[in-house]
Amino acid sequence: MKIEEVNNSKKEVSFFFFERVNLMKIEYNLIKTEKNTKARLGTIKTNYGTVETPMFMPVGTKATVKGLSPEEVKETGSAIILANTYHLWLRPGEDIVEKAGGLHKFMNYDGPILTDSGGFQVFSLAKNKKKDITEEGVHFKSHIDGKALFLTPEKSIEIQNKLDSDIAMSFDECPPASASYEYLKNSVERTIRWAKRGKETHRNPNQSLFGIVQGGAYEDLRKYSAIETVKLDFDGYSIGGVANDGESKEDMYKAIDYSIPYLPENKVRYLMGVGEPIDIIEGVIRGVDIFDCVLPTRIARHGQAFTRNGKINLNNAKYKEDFTPIEESCDCYACKHYTKAYIRHLLNTGEMLGGRLLSIHNIRFLIRLTEELREAIKEDRILEYKEEFLEKYH
Amino acid sequence: MKIEEVNNSKKEVSFFFFERVNLMKIEYNLIKTEKNTKARLGTIKTNYGTVETPMFMPVGTKATVKGLSPEEVKETGSAIILANTYHLWLRPGEDIVEKAGGLHKFMNYDGPILTDSGGFQVFSLAKNKKKDITEEGVHFKSHIDGKALFLTPEKSIEIQNKLDSDIAMSFDECPPASASYEYLKNSVERTIRWAKRGKETHRNPNQSLFGIVQGGAYEDLRKYSAIETVKLDFDGYSIGGVANDGESKEDMYKAIDYSIPYLPENKVRYLMGVGEPIDIIEGVIRGVDIFDCVLPTRIARHGQAFTRNGKINLNNAKYKEDFTPIEESCDCYACKHYTKAYIRHLLNTGEMLGGRLLSIHNIRFLIRLTEELREAIKEDRILEYKEEFLEKYH
Repeated sequence: MKIEEVNNSKKEVSFFFFERVNLMKIEYNLIKTEKNTKARLGTIKTNYGTVETPMFMPVGTKATVKGLSPEEVKETGSAIILANTYHLWLRPGEDIVEKAGGLHKFMNYDGPILTDSGGFQVFSLAKNKKKDITEEGVHFKSHIDGKALFLTPEKSIEIQNKLDSDIAMSFDECPPASASYEYLKNSVERTIRWAKRGKETHRNPNQSLFGIVQGGAYEDLRKYSAIETVKLDFDGYSIGGVANDGESKEDMYKAIDYSIPYLPENKVRYLMGVGEPIDIIEGVIRGVDIFDCVLPTRIARHGQAFTRNGKINLNNAKYKEDFTPIEESCDCYACKHYTKAYIRHLLNTGEMLGGRLLSIHNIRFLIRLTEELREAIKEDRILEYKEEFLEKYH
Repeated sequence: MKIEEVNNSKKEVSFFFFERVNLMKIEYNLIKTEKNTKARLGTIKTNYGTVETPMFMPVGTKATVKGLSPEEVKETGSAIILANTYHLWLRPGEDIVEKAGGLHKFMNYDGPILTDSGGFQVFSLAKNKKKDITEEGVHFKSHIDGKALFLTPEKSIEIQNKLDSDIAMSFDECPPASASYEYLKNSVERTIRWAKRGKETHRNPNQSLFGIVQGGAYEDLRKYSAIETVKLDFDGYSIGGVANDGESKEDMYKAIDYSIPYLPENKVRYLMGVGEPIDIIEGVIRGVDIFDCVLPTRIARHGQAFTRNGKINLNNAKYKEDFTPIEESCDCYACKHYTKAYIRHLLNTGEMLGGRLLSIHNIRFLIRLTEELREAIKEDRILEYKEEFLEKYH
């Protein structure tokens, strides 16, 4: 097949094995709210079938969940995965992804994909915040070759339109955790203006667009940000600025508590960048529906595994002759077929399969956590579930 | 499951999903010899079912075929895989593999496994050949921590007995390609004495043991080595010393031609370390049954892929917008689901999936080559097949 053929017959590409079931924006459906908390059970109808919430979304920054095949990702029970606008803009470039027939075909993932806006990466690369962040957009240097780049709300949306993800994010200003009230106030106002500009630019009828609530741990700023963003009428709402650079757990919970009351019941709520088990539980209890984080794959590459008793490090010599799986109770591919002793051997000898098995386990761990949270909501026992979980998890 | 339980119930380990079909040594069955050449069609009955020859065996040095799961290896059509005695002796140690229930259970591979003797690694690590190589064994330094080590024919077999591979290799002296006739003569005689010592040490009734023919490109030495090794009555015979350090193709073909006439018809013949497509074809034509090489996975990690038109490098910018598979005609997982443009993107961004997809393709390429060679033998057209292959492969 030649490039021209791909371009001329996007719908007929028979080379790949999947097909969209719909061509539409997402639809959130609230099934129930838990009796004692704000925890919500729901579904999201997507272009690739209906998925359940609360949900954890694995991250595939550069159009690949690090080390895993799409089949392995799906086998963990994952539904929506993430990809990163900034990284794909630089390599391979949004035009190549578009020519490939969009991100799904490019990476062979026949499930829903969410793209972030690039905001977080861009702000961490902008060295002189005062000078580099202008009303028009953000000046910064490429992390690959130092080339001067400029990203605007319009450009972020244009890139995401071409990537053809199912859910796009507005381009927001991501302030540092240490930012002053004044800085945050300006940042919130600018983020709303940028959200508006992005929405006006958005052209992809099969792609949903989310607005992002900012405002640090300040009640009035979060309230203002939520109300003004909701006025712009997005397809879903994210809570940002909770996992940028070391925000405290208390500030994260405040940020959620101050934002949630002003978000509409009939739209999905997304807490960006959060993946510690306890934070997912706390987020769900506070009314969050979806979460994403690089944590499960990142700690896997360093030899760490989530377990019900907390994280363990498989590099540890004590696992040398431990012929049990990572977790006896886990149903993931790694736990069904491999021992700690073997995984330790793989890590110890620098073999790729080690990080891959741990990534599978860690993603499955968080997916199972959300599966159990959904059950707990059904049974109105989410606070009990939290207590039981915390009793073991250290 | 505790270590003790594994030790006490090796046969009942239910944690893993496979079982041996037999407990026996291998049996080679010659089906036919091609009309115009010495090429042989055959089968090998193993502890994990009957497999066909000619066959290419992927290498899993440290109890993992680099980057691949056992399921992926099997999906390429592979049967026997290799593991390395020297590397597993050092890490994790043969006692840990034995406690795990043997190499198959340790690495979750329910197919036949062949272990090399460590000879090749040890000789490349022995700095002072004259001083370090003694009649008793070889002194050398660990490639990991420089620790002084000593490997003997007996120790190599004892390690392999514990690893519980299906096929073990005798510990041979691997002379450099530049070795003199005198050096080679002594080396051949010592290798025969070592083969005898190894055979006397061998204790695993479910493990076959192969003898190794050495002698460089000298007709008399190869003849002598083959005849004397066959007298010791091994379960199969390897032709060694053809892929140690840059032997020429001419010398490789001579080594095969000078050895094969003295090997028994009813035993399998293994050309060690050979994996270039043309060398596999030439080896088969000369009467070789099985081959192994790190080549398909090694070049994959550097971005190279085998194709019918020769090797290509997917790092090349010309594949940036090439939305065709590596090979249109290939039935591997990588070619069925991914484009050159995507694989290039993965390589370009350092993503692990890139090398993994290329490894799958390259192994499948060599497996398909042997599948086609088997067909060509059936049809007595192996010389035509070679011509057709060479016409395209550059």
